[in-house]
Amino acid sequence: MKKLTLIPPNNIIIMDAFWDRYVRLVKNIIIPYQWDILNDKLESVKPSHCIENFKIAAGRVDGEFYGAAFQDSDLSKWIEAVAFSLATHPDKELEKLVDEVVDLIEEAQQDDGYLNTYYTIKGLEYRFTNLREGHELYCAGHLMEAAVAYYKATGKHKLLNIAERFADLICDEFSEDKNSKGYPGHQEVEIGLIKLYEVTGKTHYLEQARLFIERRGEKPNYFMEEIKGPRFEQIFNEFTDYDLSYAQSHLPVREQMTAEGHAVRAVYMYSAMADLAAAYDDVSLLDACKVLWNNITHKRMYITGSIGSSGILERFTTDYDLPNNCNYSETCASIGLALFGRRMAQITGESAYYDVVERALYNTVLSGIAMDGKSFFYVNPLEVWPDNCLPRTSKEHVKPVRQKWFGVACCPPNVARTLASLGEYIYFNESNSIWVNLFISSEANVIINNQEVSISMQTNYPYDGYIRISSNCEKSTMGKLLLRIPDYINKYKVFVDGEQINEIIIKNGYCILELEFSNQIIELDFDISPRIVRANPFVKEDIGKVAIMKGPLVYCMEEVDNESNLPAYYIDSSSDLEEYYDKDLLGGTMVIQCQGKKVRQDEWDESKLYSERKINYEDKTLTFIPYPFWGNRKTGEMVVWIKE
Amino acid sequence: MKKLTLIPPNNIIIMDAFWDRYVRLVKNIIIPYQWDILNDKLESVKPSHCIENFKIAAGRVDGEFYGAAFQDSDLSKWIEAVAFSLATHPDKELEKLVDEVVDLIEEAQQDDGYLNTYYTIKGLEYRFTNLREGHELYCAGHLMEAAVAYYKATGKHKLLNIAERFADLICDEFSEDKNSKGYPGHQEVEIGLIKLYEVTGKTHYLEQARLFIERRGEKPNYFMEEIKGPRFEQIFNEFTDYDLSYAQSHLPVREQMTAEGHAVRAVYMYSAMADLAAAYDDVSLLDACKVLWNNITHKRMYITGSIGSSGILERFTTDYDLPNNCNYSETCASIGLALFGRRMAQITGESAYYDVVERALYNTVLSGIAMDGKSFFYVNPLEVWPDNCLPRTSKEHVKPVRQKWFGVACCPPNVARTLASLGEYIYFNESNSIWVNLFISSEANVIINNQEVSISMQTNYPYDGYIRISSNCEKSTMGKLLLRIPDYINKYKVFVDGEQINEIIIKNGYCILELEFSNQIIELDFDISPRIVRANPFVKEDIGKVAIMKGPLVYCMEEVDNESNLPAYYIDSSSDLEEYYDKDLLGGTMVIQCQGKKVRQDEWDESKLYSERKINYEDKTLTFIPYPFWGNRKTGEMVVWIKE
Repeated sequence: MKKLTLIPPNNIIIMDAFWDRYVRLVKNIIIPYQWDILNDKLESVKPSHCIENFKIAAGRVDGEFYGAAFQDSDLSKWIEAVAFSLATHPDKELEKLVDEVVDLIEEAQQDDGYLNTYYTIKGLEYRFTNLREGHELYCAGHLMEAAVAYYKATGKHKLLNIAERFADLICDEFSEDKNSKGYPGHQEVEIGLIKLYEVTGKTHYLEQARLFIERRGEKPNYFMEEIKGPRFEQIFNEFTDYDLSYAQSHLPVREQMTAEGHAVRAVYMYSAMADLAAAYDDVSLLDACKVLWNNITHKRMYITGSIGSSGILERFTTDYDLPNNCNYSETCASIGLALFGRRMAQITGESAYYDVVERALYNTVLSGIAMDGKSFFYVNPLEVWPDNCLPRTSKEHVKPVRQKWFGVACCPPNVARTLASLGEYIYFNESNSIWVNLFISSEANVIINNQEVSISMQTNYPYDGYIRISSNCEKSTMGKLLLRIPDYINKYKVFVDGEQINEIIIKNGYCILELEFSNQIIELDFDISPRIVRANPFVKEDIGKVAIMKGPLVYCMEEVDNESNLPAYYIDSSSDLEEYYDKDLLGGTMVIQCQGKKVRQDEWDESKLYSERKINYEDKTLTFIPYPFWGNRKTGEMVVWIKE
Repeated sequence: MKKLTLIPPNNIIIMDAFWDRYVRLVKNIIIPYQWDILNDKLESVKPSHCIENFKIAAGRVDGEFYGAAFQDSDLSKWIEAVAFSLATHPDKELEKLVDEVVDLIEEAQQDDGYLNTYYTIKGLEYRFTNLREGHELYCAGHLMEAAVAYYKATGKHKLLNIAERFADLICDEFSEDKNSKGYPGHQEVEIGLIKLYEVTGKTHYLEQARLFIERRGEKPNYFMEEIKGPRFEQIFNEFTDYDLSYAQSHLPVREQMTAEGHAVRAVYMYSAMADLAAAYDDVSLLDACKVLWNNITHKRMYITGSIGSSGILERFTTDYDLPNNCNYSETCASIGLALFGRRMAQITGESAYYDVVERALYNTVLSGIAMDGKSFFYVNPLEVWPDNCLPRTSKEHVKPVRQKWFGVACCPPNVARTLASLGEYIYFNESNSIWVNLFISSEANVIINNQEVSISMQTNYPYDGYIRISSNCEKSTMGKLLLRIPDYINKYKVFVDGEQINEIIIKNGYCILELEFSNQIIELDFDISPRIVRANPFVKEDIGKVAIMKGPLVYCMEEVDNESNLPAYYIDSSSDLEEYYDKDLLGGTMVIQCQGKKVRQDEWDESKLYSERKINYEDKTLTFIPYPFWGNRKTGEMVVWIKE
């Protein structure tokens, strides 16, 4: 089966009212800020030691490894973010910095290709002895992704060669005819190997990714066998009583009917499965992907496109178990969900996958980062009461304020590389067709019938439902433009060169236009009024509550715009949802207001925690802001689901 | 200040419709069942090794210590339960069993009085080197309580002597003029020492208890100093980053304004503080108790009289933070709260304390044990959805089914000793007065003006509000009968010898009757209709919800009497609460029903987790049973707070 292609990042430039502030952050703030952190230059932040670990492994300095076993991946994700940034915004100085880091990485690589500072420093005799915890293959995967991105952006081979040498060693160590039947404890190397295959054409990388996936759930279970090895040493206390479903190795992947275990591991694996299904034309593997996708998106996903209901082990729990104030909802897991969904859309051409991709990107991926680019949420709650987010309690993982950096710092560089690669999410392209998936103002160059077509999209989405797409081509050429009609759009109009299309052809959720790509203007006019959304009543936590959405954006109430004790508010769902643009708020945002009431607290006798007293209410205006922007002002309560 | 006295347990026999099934369980089921467990005789239960540890420490057999560092306390609590049982139900065989165990305990005691199997087996050189985790003083306290109870029940001195020898060693080790300024990491020894003082009159025990309390929060903090000792060895992983408030040693006790840390430790400490305030006439200490009591009961207590909102560290969190489905609410903590409240009532003579004692006993203490006496809740949730009580998730501490025994088995024997000592909770007595605190059918002998008066109480409480108390005395004597009027009673009548009292004198929540104690009959007629109760609106989790109570009993909905998805029910709080006695249900219980509605789930499209669809409802009858009886039938959902 074929996979619709992405537009290379250097062929697209984003210039969007909603996204620009974030995309600009990547280059101007996040990349230099994270570079300082990787180099332990920020006094206010706990040392990362990441570059230092490489220097020690390279023999440049003496010292001990410091940080998590997967610390190396932070540098790879940073390089990947830089690569995507360089693709659209060349910067000689920044490129030189990366080239120097690549030299350091090369020095830290072993003669046989092995590359991991944790095991190099701790003792190479332990390498590959603890796959379930060691994260060597995880770090390898991120290295490969970084190498591919940097090669694509700059054409430079050095990092690609480093990654290939390591990939060759991995293929050698874990190939079909070798003794080791191992596979990664944290999936990611599969994605890296597939990307490496895609740029080099070397099929053994693809085959190794397939092997890693097919081995999961085989009996006897590798993770239970490797702990008997003479050199096995446990790294993480919490894995003493290891649960095979944690890393999705409880069953062969085709037999997994529900999304289980650590959410990030899961969606990274599903993404690789989707790629492999396409590459090998493997229908049963694609079916497995669909089953898992449906389980997540129909039963285990928050309205914000986040996943992982349990703070302990950052994992999926059961169908419809979606607590709002003690969930995990890791930023990285939503990034992984977007990666998975994009691949499913590439393979199936169905827009429904993109409804979820868009939901994840606009809400949880963005909420993961502060508007100044310098602090981050790892956990993305849907309801917060700062006072009870205490250390050493059941809510200790929930932070009411974004943190500058984390001991386990996967999310910040992951957000950076995702924002830097946002262009890749907007379009698909194939022979004579262009798919428009996201509505983000941008300029792109696309190949239609072997001819370059410039596509320009102008919109104020999601604040406004009007989208103008113009094509420009030296020689006119016939082709198709497929416009995604999001599932939340009930009314819309389509115009071509000013003329409204009356008989709209919809297939797989895309409106299909047959066009001559030459100075044509396509206009989409979506009714994107704010709407009231409810959850399936099996979601116990949301019964009797509603959420406000506008397009893909989830809205929330913050204490700073309302009063404290947000759960005491009730919305009058028959009242109008009024919206207005406040140019001074949060750098300019659309605010929604509606009418409701609030429990009167002043009448209650404080000395009676429980009583027969009746409750009275007072009228209130409820004010909502977009969920991704919460926590950028005064610390306070926040709530997405409001009583109806 | 004086403390109203309790009636000795051998002077009271309970014969009560509501309680008898439990009290009988203690003697017939729980005591023999727990004896088998202590001796590792039950194959279906994880070994306790408790008796085996004593045999090893005594040198009778060889072996290693097994179990938690505080395993010894299980035996002491069992002995205490047996002692209370023997006080009212003499049993030669059972007494012989205890005497044999006492011999074993004596053999395990060191020459200098030290007695703890964990440290005796692990190495006595480590004793008292890790007070914050070691639990030696905690176990010592339970030994003292057991010894006092067994001495009172049987008049036998042997166990009392063992306890005194250990107490003398403790006083010697930790007295004012010794180097060690230590105090227990888990409070309990203070209660034991005070009880030992009360039966022996030896004031150095009382003084040592006072010292232990006064030292908490002193700077430098002992728990931070002792870890520097050459023999300090950490026992529990979770204490790596020790939080001083965990064991209430963050501040001097008089400066503690809020209940913090591990809930059981807290209420055991407050109980000792109350005792010490009375013994030393210490007003500031009593004031501290009042502040802490009010903080708990006005802001940090569940409607079921349970405490400890966080599963992690079993601790208090913040004011009004009372989540219903991931709370800890340990059975032992409610036992401790009842012990604290009873002492406060003894000192102040105020009935308000007993409103809480009664709430804790009728709800959480009872819910801690199955109706067959063989399985136990450690954690007492107010809302359960069995599917999501998964191991290795944020709800792993919540069990939808009572467990046979626990690795940390504090609760089962604690429930046993509490039920066995229930008689102690019913009355207070002083010179010419009797306080009636609980309404439990029983026969008691009380001393009024140095004369023995038989008091007989007959009631079907809490199912019925009618209480008949008759006194019988050889020679008539004048005195006072003080009848507690619970805070939930709005209407009631009082009769003396058939004549209604029109001008009722109420003081401190007690109705005071001046009586001639000679064949008099006092009748109380409470209106104890079921009622709808709401929580202070600052309790975010309960806003928009109500609970049903009848007298002190909290009611709950179980799936088995209703349907699944209990949070989808709404109560019509204007409908009548109808009650009926079902003699076949749960051994006979009062059931409450009322009208309401339920969200229609069948209309929802399963493939849409979130949509704009409106919600429809269907009419339903809601059925409630007493909270303490939940989980005694088919496993299923349970909920206390219902949407209004």
